[in-house]
Parts: sequence; C-alpha cells; structure tokens
Amino acid sequence: MLTKEGCQTRQTRLRDELSSAGIDAIALVHPLEIYYFTGVLLPESFPAPPAVFWFEADGNSWLAAHTDEGDPLVDESVTYEWSIGGTVNSYLRTQLGELVVDRLQAKNTKAGRVGYQREFMGKLLADHIEKGLGGAPEWVDVDEMLNQMQEVKDDDELALMRKAVQIDLAAYDAAQQAISPGVNELEVLGAAQQAAHLAAGEKVFHDGDYQCGQLGGFARDRKIEEGELYIIDAWITYRGYWSDLCRTFSVGEPTELQESIYNHLSAFHDRIGDYLQPGKDSRDCAKAMDAYIREHPALAEAGLGHHGGHTIGLRAHQMPDVNPTRGGIFRVGNVVSIEPGSYIPDARAGVRLENMYLITESGPENLSVYPMEIRCRS
Amino acid sequence: MLTKEGCQTRQTRLRDELSSAGIDAIALVHPLEIYYFTGVLLPESFPAPPAVFWFEADGNSWLAAHTDEGDPLVDESVTYEWSIGGTVNSYLRTQLGELVVDRLQAKNTKAGRVGYQREFMGKLLADHIEKGLGGAPEWVDVDEMLNQMQEVKDDDELALMRKAVQIDLAAYDAAQQAISPGVNELEVLGAAQQAAHLAAGEKVFHDGDYQCGQLGGFARDRKIEEGELYIIDAWITYRGYWSDLCRTFSVGEPTELQESIYNHLSAFHDRIGDYLQPGKDSRDCAKAMDAYIREHPALAEAGLGHHGGHTIGLRAHQMPDVNPTRGGIFRVGNVVSIEPGSYIPDARAGVRLENMYLITESGPENLSVYPMEIRCRS
Repeated sequence: MLTKEGCQTRQTRLRDELSSAGIDAIALVHPLEIYYFTGVLLPESFPAPPAVFWFEADGNSWLAAHTDEGDPLVDESVTYEWSIGGTVNSYLRTQLGELVVDRLQAKNTKAGRVGYQREFMGKLLADHIEKGLGGAPEWVDVDEMLNQMQEVKDDDELALMRKAVQIDLAAYDAAQQAISPGVNELEVLGAAQQAAHLAAGEKVFHDGDYQCGQLGGFARDRKIEEGELYIIDAWITYRGYWSDLCRTFSVGEPTELQESIYNHLSAFHDRIGDYLQPGKDSRDCAKAMDAYIREHPALAEAGLGHHGGHTIGLRAHQMPDVNPTRGGIFRVGNVVSIEPGSYIPDARAGVRLENMYLITESGPENLSVYPMEIRCRS
Repeated sequence: MLTKEGCQTRQTRLRDELSSAGIDAIALVHPLEIYYFTGVLLPESFPAPPAVFWFEADGNSWLAAHTDEGDPLVDESVTYEWSIGGTVNSYLRTQLGELVVDRLQAKNTKAGRVGYQREFMGKLLADHIEKGLGGAPEWVDVDEMLNQMQEVKDDDELALMRKAVQIDLAAYDAAQQAISPGVNELEVLGAAQQAAHLAAGEKVFHDGDYQCGQLGGFARDRKIEEGELYIIDAWITYRGYWSDLCRTFSVGEPTELQESIYNHLSAFHDRIGDYLQPGKDSRDCAKAMDAYIREHPALAEAGLGHHGGHTIGLRAHQMPDVNPTRGGIFRVGNVVSIEPGSYIPDARAGVRLENMYLITESGPENLSVYPMEIRCRS
C-alpha cells in the first residue's frame, strides 16, 4: 500500500497548495484521492461505500467512511453503519451526509472557501457540508490542482507501479503458453488472469484487449486462428495503481509482412530516449512516432492508429497524453506508456507494442523490460 | 441484454409513477438505472463515462452519454467527446454538464419538479441542470420509488438472472475440480473465473469469498489444507445482473461433525417453501432460520452467523433483506437469496449454503438447482 511517509509528504504538499490558493479546507470524495493522501484504499465497486476526507489548510483532518480499518493518516476517523448482518444498507450517502453534518457542527468548523472535486462531489454531500458549516461556502474546484500533483509520482507510488508491471508481465507469460490455433480467446484471458493473481499474491483486476485478429476489444467466445496476430493490451491494477502494456503474438508462424511490421514498430522503442526527456513536449513524440511508422511501405497510409501513449498512475489515463494534437511537457517523475501501433487487414490485423517508462533526469527508465518477440514462447 | 419490450413496460410504469407524484421530469444518472429503462448498459468502471437519462412525465426523453451505441430506448441520443485518440478526457462530467445545458435550452425545457437520484446525483450535473432550466427546480428524491420498482423483476430481468446463475454454477464445477490439499486459493479462484467466462460466452465479473478454513473473505496466497471446509460464496454479474450463491466443500474427507453440520444446514432449504410465499414477512424467515440452526447441538451457541439472505437483481443487495431486525413483505417477482450459515472453530470453519429463489404465486422457484454435496466431484 501507499506508505505513511508518502502520504505525509503529499499532505504537506497539499497544505502548501491550499494555503497559496487561499482555500480553508478541502473535501475529497473519490476513493483514489482519499487513498493518495490517507493511505486507505476504500472499495470503488460493490458495495462502493462513500467517504469524505476533510482536510484543513491550517488545522485538523478527519475521514468519514464505512470503516476505520487500515489506519488512515488523519487526526480522527468516524464511521457510519454500512450494513446489517452483512446486507448493505440502501442509503449509504444519506448516512454519510448526516455524519458529516454532525462532525462539522461538533467541531464548530468554519471554512469560507472549500476546495472540492468538481467532477466527483455529490449534490447530497455538498448540501450536507453546507448545512454543517451553517451556510454555503465558496466552492473552489481543485480538480486540476490534484491532477497536476498526481502527474509526478512519489517513491511509494512507483513501488506499487513496478509491482503492477511485474504482475502484467506474468500474465503475458501465461497468455503466450495458452496461445495456439483453436484456443478460445476467453481461455487465454482466463489463463492470464489466474497467473496475475498468483504473481500478485492476491486477487487483482486484469483485463484489456484480448481479441485476436483485431486491433482491440474484449475477449470473445471465439477460437483464435492460425495466421492471425494476437494483440494483447493487458491491464492490471495493484493496490490502486495501474499497469497498461501491450505485446503482439503471432498465432503460428508469422508471415514476412507481419514480421517486418513487428520489427519496424519494435524498433521505435530503441529511439524513445530521444523523446522521453524532461522538458520535451509529448506531442513531438506522437508526431515522430507517426512519421516513423509511415516509413514502412505497408504502413505509409495507415500510420499511427491511435494515440502514441499516455501518462498513467492511479488512473489508467492521465495527462499529458502522447497525441499529436494534445499533450504537454514531460517532467521528472512522469510515468508514460509508449505504444506504437498500426493496423492493416493484410497483417490480420496489425501490431501494437507498449512499454511503460519513468522519466528521470537522465532520460527514460523502461519499467516493463520484457522481450519483444512475435513468436510465442511455449 | 434487457429487451426493448421490457424497457418500454418499465418506462410506462415510470411515467405513471411520475404523474401520480406530480413530477414533471426525471434525471437518472446511475448506469444501472439508465440500463433498466433504456436497455443500454454503460460501463461503471474504467473509463466510467458519466451519462444522464432525461425523461419527461408528459413528453420526450433523451440520453446524454459518451456514445450513442446500443440503440437506447429514447427519443434522441446526444454525445460528448470522451477521448482523443483513445486517451480518456479528464473532465468528462464537465463536458456532459455542458451538453445537458445545451440540450435543455435547445428544447426550451420547463420542469418545476424534477425527480433525481439523491444518492447518486453529482453537484456539477445538478448545477448544470439548474442552468439549463433557467433556475433551480424543486428537486424530488426518487430513490425509494426506484428501489420499490426494482424489487419486482420483469421477464427480461429474470432471463438475465437465470443466465447469471448458470454461469455461477459452472464456476462451482471448476472450483470443485481444482480443490485439493496444497492448491492455492488464488488458483481455485482463477480456475472458476476462467470457467465463468467460457460458460457466459463473454468475459464476466466473478469473485466472492474464496478463503478456505474461514467464514469469508477474498482469496489469499495460501495453500488449502486437508481437513478444512472451503466456503465459496461466488458472485457473477452478467449484463448488469447478479448471481450470488454459496456452496461449501470439504478438502479431503469431512469429519463427522462437519458432515452433520452440512446436512443440518442443507435441510433448511427443504423447508424454505414455508417462508418464501407472497405476503410473508422476510424477518420471520430469518428468525426461523436461526432457531432451526440452533437445533444442532454443536451450533446451539453460534446460531445463524449473519443475515439469512437478501433480495438481489441489478445490485447484489436489495431490500427486503432477510434479517431478524430488518426486512419486509415478500411479493411475487422478488428474487431472494437464502443462505443459512453457521461457524465454529471445530468445523474449520463452518458451512454456508445459498440458493436464489424466485417468489411466485405458488411459492418459491429454486433458480440455482445444484447438488448440495460436501465432497468435491472431481
């Protein structure tokens, strides 16, 4: 999990941000941001119990949630009743809201300017915060502030991402062993998922593009065919952090065309040090990738079939992305996926090869060292 | 998926509810309720694109979402731009909100009383709706109205739940084959997940309690041991609908105590027809279950270890539940899980056996016909 030290560092950084923006307190509601600052990862899906992390620029912090387990880095935790006998209560947000009113009133909380997650704040909770404060504060959108903070990874975040990548690579080992003409795409996915759990030492989310002979899409109830290329764009989340990688495998012996496309796209990763440097513009990388791909005669028309990559962390896609028309300046501590991909029917259906790189002072570190070989190792 | 006919029936029912409550229009935001009425199931997780279904008691309906695929049962669909080149945009709710303002203004929409999902409505979207309407409406909480509607299942819902149950049972077949002393709990989970995908003919969510020798909890990186009981409380969601079942297996030959507890709990399902009748109170079922369990000398102290069950559908837990202190009156069309369970250390660690039943005019129909046998079939 994220460490106490990491959370403390981030809270200090947050306090500085709030002070300089003249914000009295912040109310965070998304489980991922609550995790980022307190170290407690609350479930995002069933039963998706709501929570709020209240953090004052010049004072106390508390977490209101369905549980106080996990030792959150806050001054105090308060809880609401989330179930009876194991049956999840129907109106959890209503209960949370009432708890928040009590909390704000008990502390006699004053806050004129309150930072909030504009994208995620519920109307119900906002109404309760206003009631607890005795009137509507000036609500200040902090989404961009949080996004900016999260672009640069701390050491405890990187440790989790490194582990997520290793789990993803173990899934590739299993997928390669499963790939053979006549095998169902769902079997390949299932084999990779099982391997991912074992590599993680706990159950993890693993999914991604598992359609054979297609450029993307989820696994289907369909047998893979000799002569197809199998693009597996595989995702893991491990303790809140994402890995997103892609490899392409031939089902049986590849054709000359398939192999030459593979080798061409693979070689882009050899020159990535030219682009993944602090201070460089991610858009330039996307443009260079497209131009490079078109140097292959068979790909001159197709070019780069999508974005060239994206930053990643608590969410699969963060900014800056690696698009010709949108991006930004790379900074030390960004983790960037780079994914040259190009698709033509003659190649049944194309190749995509994605690594994740950490931007350092001296250039990119490849977090996903793993062979680029078109033929499956069995 | 849910059918057009089913959605039409539900929309008619919703229109009647709104009219009788004097509500002019309703704004639904949760993907599950949008699915329930329009037939389009939008992803709840990555990238969890937000949407709103606007439905007027006496007029038009429209869906604002990231896509117009899936042929939603609405008069019109409008979309926002959710990605560039595949990178998910950061501020999807902001985009949705602006689209909603445009839509309400373009239609010159008037609505004095607007029904909304109090638990799920975002502050951002509510603010945009107020802007689009040219002023704040009277917001009317419709959560309980929706919950009441969803307690009684339509035929298209039941068809999906029946399929979900069959997938869950296929997972049990695979789990039984995997269970053997020395096998990792994560391997058992992975084998069941793979089988679930194949039985579904598509990837499905499958998880649940997979700890051996414990009464619950997610699979661990731990080898199962001869002499333990393996309680597998297995969940599936298939096209939005849940299955939630439980079986218990002995790792190796069960002890006399384990077998007698198993047989005692299993036999409660033989008398369930006494309780699962329209008009009966679910609390009585829970109380009877607890009293029955205590008739076993080894369980006289432990009794029922949790709720006796719950209704289920679009969400894992719906009301009424089967608790001694909370519940309600069963109606035709409820789907109810019944899960006698009791846990004592001497049994390493106990037994839980859960079926799902449909309440009909003439009593319960067991949706999850599957052997109750403590020994694994290999």
